[in-house]
Amino acid sequence: MNLKIDYTGCMNLLSRDEINMQSEEALGHLKKLMEGSGKGSDFTGWIDLPEKSQTQAGKIKNAARRLRSQADITVIIGIGGSYLGSRAVIEALDSCMPLRADDQGHKVLFAGQNISEDYMSRVAAYLAGKVFNIIVISKSGTTTEPAIAFRILKKQLEETIPAAEVKKHIVAVTDAEKGALRKLTDREGYDSFIIPDDVGGRYSVLTPVGLLPIAVAGYDIDSLTGGAAEMASRTRDNNNANPAIVYASVRNLLYKKGKYIEMLVNYEPHLHYIAEWWKQLFGESEGKEGKGLFPTAADLTTDLHSLGQYIQEGERILIETVLSVASPSTEMIIPHDADNLDGLNYIAGRRLSEVNAKAEEGTIMAHIKGAVPVIKINIPRVNEAYLGQLLYFFEISCAISGYILGINPFDQPGVEAYKNNMFRLLGRPS
Amino acid sequence: MNLKIDYTGCMNLLSRDEINMQSEEALGHLKKLMEGSGKGSDFTGWIDLPEKSQTQAGKIKNAARRLRSQADITVIIGIGGSYLGSRAVIEALDSCMPLRADDQGHKVLFAGQNISEDYMSRVAAYLAGKVFNIIVISKSGTTTEPAIAFRILKKQLEETIPAAEVKKHIVAVTDAEKGALRKLTDREGYDSFIIPDDVGGRYSVLTPVGLLPIAVAGYDIDSLTGGAAEMASRTRDNNNANPAIVYASVRNLLYKKGKYIEMLVNYEPHLHYIAEWWKQLFGESEGKEGKGLFPTAADLTTDLHSLGQYIQEGERILIETVLSVASPSTEMIIPHDADNLDGLNYIAGRRLSEVNAKAEEGTIMAHIKGAVPVIKINIPRVNEAYLGQLLYFFEISCAISGYILGINPFDQPGVEAYKNNMFRLLGRPS
Repeated sequence: MNLKIDYTGCMNLLSRDEINMQSEEALGHLKKLMEGSGKGSDFTGWIDLPEKSQTQAGKIKNAARRLRSQADITVIIGIGGSYLGSRAVIEALDSCMPLRADDQGHKVLFAGQNISEDYMSRVAAYLAGKVFNIIVISKSGTTTEPAIAFRILKKQLEETIPAAEVKKHIVAVTDAEKGALRKLTDREGYDSFIIPDDVGGRYSVLTPVGLLPIAVAGYDIDSLTGGAAEMASRTRDNNNANPAIVYASVRNLLYKKGKYIEMLVNYEPHLHYIAEWWKQLFGESEGKEGKGLFPTAADLTTDLHSLGQYIQEGERILIETVLSVASPSTEMIIPHDADNLDGLNYIAGRRLSEVNAKAEEGTIMAHIKGAVPVIKINIPRVNEAYLGQLLYFFEISCAISGYILGINPFDQPGVEAYKNNMFRLLGRPS
Repeated sequence: MNLKIDYTGCMNLLSRDEINMQSEEALGHLKKLMEGSGKGSDFTGWIDLPEKSQTQAGKIKNAARRLRSQADITVIIGIGGSYLGSRAVIEALDSCMPLRADDQGHKVLFAGQNISEDYMSRVAAYLAGKVFNIIVISKSGTTTEPAIAFRILKKQLEETIPAAEVKKHIVAVTDAEKGALRKLTDREGYDSFIIPDDVGGRYSVLTPVGLLPIAVAGYDIDSLTGGAAEMASRTRDNNNANPAIVYASVRNLLYKKGKYIEMLVNYEPHLHYIAEWWKQLFGESEGKEGKGLFPTAADLTTDLHSLGQYIQEGERILIETVLSVASPSTEMIIPHDADNLDGLNYIAGRRLSEVNAKAEEGTIMAHIKGAVPVIKINIPRVNEAYLGQLLYFFEISCAISGYILGINPFDQPGVEAYKNNMFRLLGRPS
């Protein structure tokens, strides 16, 4: 089985001819992308990552095994693309950390993704007196958020374990040659992995940036990259059934018709961070030159009880893209109740996932009727292989979509504006 | 000190005259609201809740004390307005649950806010063999999500503790007279609290719906309602400095100028669920008749590294509303480093919150320059009293804003569409 795209829920607004024409154009963009002749082609190293990353898998798995054997906790320090990919995969495969007793399995925490004093204090308090590992992920080593967190937690580690042990508990993922973190890594002798120069942060999940934390959390990176490779073979081809061509075409056609917002929704809350990763991928790739669909997300059915009214009857500017998972990982039955005061006996003995699936089906029907076009991404189940397919599918779709939009999907010129103000306000020496 | 609104960041797009005119209209709507002569006036019981709820505080605190004394875990079962208010306040005051060892303090979990089989399985697995309480919150007792969760967890509780004990571990918050949960409550003899008929779900945080879980989590509901009362006295008045008049007016003027999206942002991740609550409040109140600002949220600086590019340079359809917290609750200093490879020594010895504040200031300047109007809500610190002010401020602002928009801010006709489809697909007996 494979991940599949279903856009029948958009056909009230689109014609077959429009889609065919847009797809033809999109195939031209795919050709440019593969030839390296499109905008930003210096940053298309991610295209071959499914294959390239397999050569590094052994080294990554060894490092992960070592880290897991020497501590029960690993803190991942990173922000943006150095954070969202691994968090997305790890939480998709196991969202139960908040519900896990302290003695069950290796814990992965995230730090350096904000500058909140309260957040950092709580991470530090939790780690107090405990032996832990740090995976610090930063191309430059000077990005403010992760650099602050690394200073604080490295110091804490130095105060907790013998000086000679510290370097074994730190692994760096950074530039091959340049930057503060590379310099420190070489001097201290940290184990390290390289962030390639031709892969931007938001496309880096299949480099050690994503793969090392995912392996440390206990998941199968070979299946993940294998899934990505499978999707790569389906989406690099010049044919109309290419799901990336379809998705990129449909969302751009809808955007041209006045849909300003694309909402990625799930019915499994552990996919929450998949949407956060997707928001960066598309928002940072397309949000430029005054253009781009605004990417947002919702966890359903939870948010049907908050945003449901707006989706159904508010401004008609929404596209809904559904991550539709066929089978959950666990099994649970709705119990029978002799009194049946709540009236639920008609679904007693059935699985929650069956009810959830009908909620999804009923919601899609309601939203289409409410003039919200719906794109469905059918995912057989949430495992490493299908997540690998999904991630690569979104990456290649995003590149094609950015070319349709006419922008460079691989730069991010707008992200420096706030940083420059901040540095000036903080009085950073130039 | 008090919560304050600063809309100078909108003045590139708005004139003083426009704001004055819109405020005049808004004051008329406030008058209608207070007289009960506006749309949906049957559901304005929330207006007096800051005072009314104080009469119930003793009973709520007693119940909370009893629940805390007899178990270490309480599961809150509810969805939408029966869930978001308490979760918002509890997480704002203590977001460290995922980072808390099992033996530290009373744990509050949430269930019944989705139909995910994986989620429910994990909650049940975590609770296996443990003694816990259930607070079940539902006006009807038949809403699918919480009703399923209640069936499952009640059964689990019955299998864990003696039959005679079960009823002491369940508290219901439900209708005074009608519905399945009221019937069960009266028959089993559960302790219970009432959801008033004249208060809709999204306005119910200051009823026992919100107050009981907040008290069980260990927080001061008197300060919360006291803060709300303080804001009530400032926002019921017919004067131009009324912050609710200002906020409702400014956001509607911006909407009329083509801003389709309002993004509520924080720089303290524990305010994440405040935004989730706010999204329901505004989205469900205003998203009707093809109208309404789309409410979305971001946790910064985290999401500056994902959505920052879009905010700075994408479609110019955004309003940014900033929850600006002056002081964090904890203190942490950036350490000095002899090598200074990361170049951070210029901020060594300073608090993280100072850097965070400069990030906020620099970001606001950058976004205003990028043609994103910014509304700032200045909050002295995150405690019960200021949260009470904030919640009431948003509630009354939302009512006025809905009247400016010309819709009924107290109904939600669109939320039944998906439910009816779901019931049909599941074959529910009529």
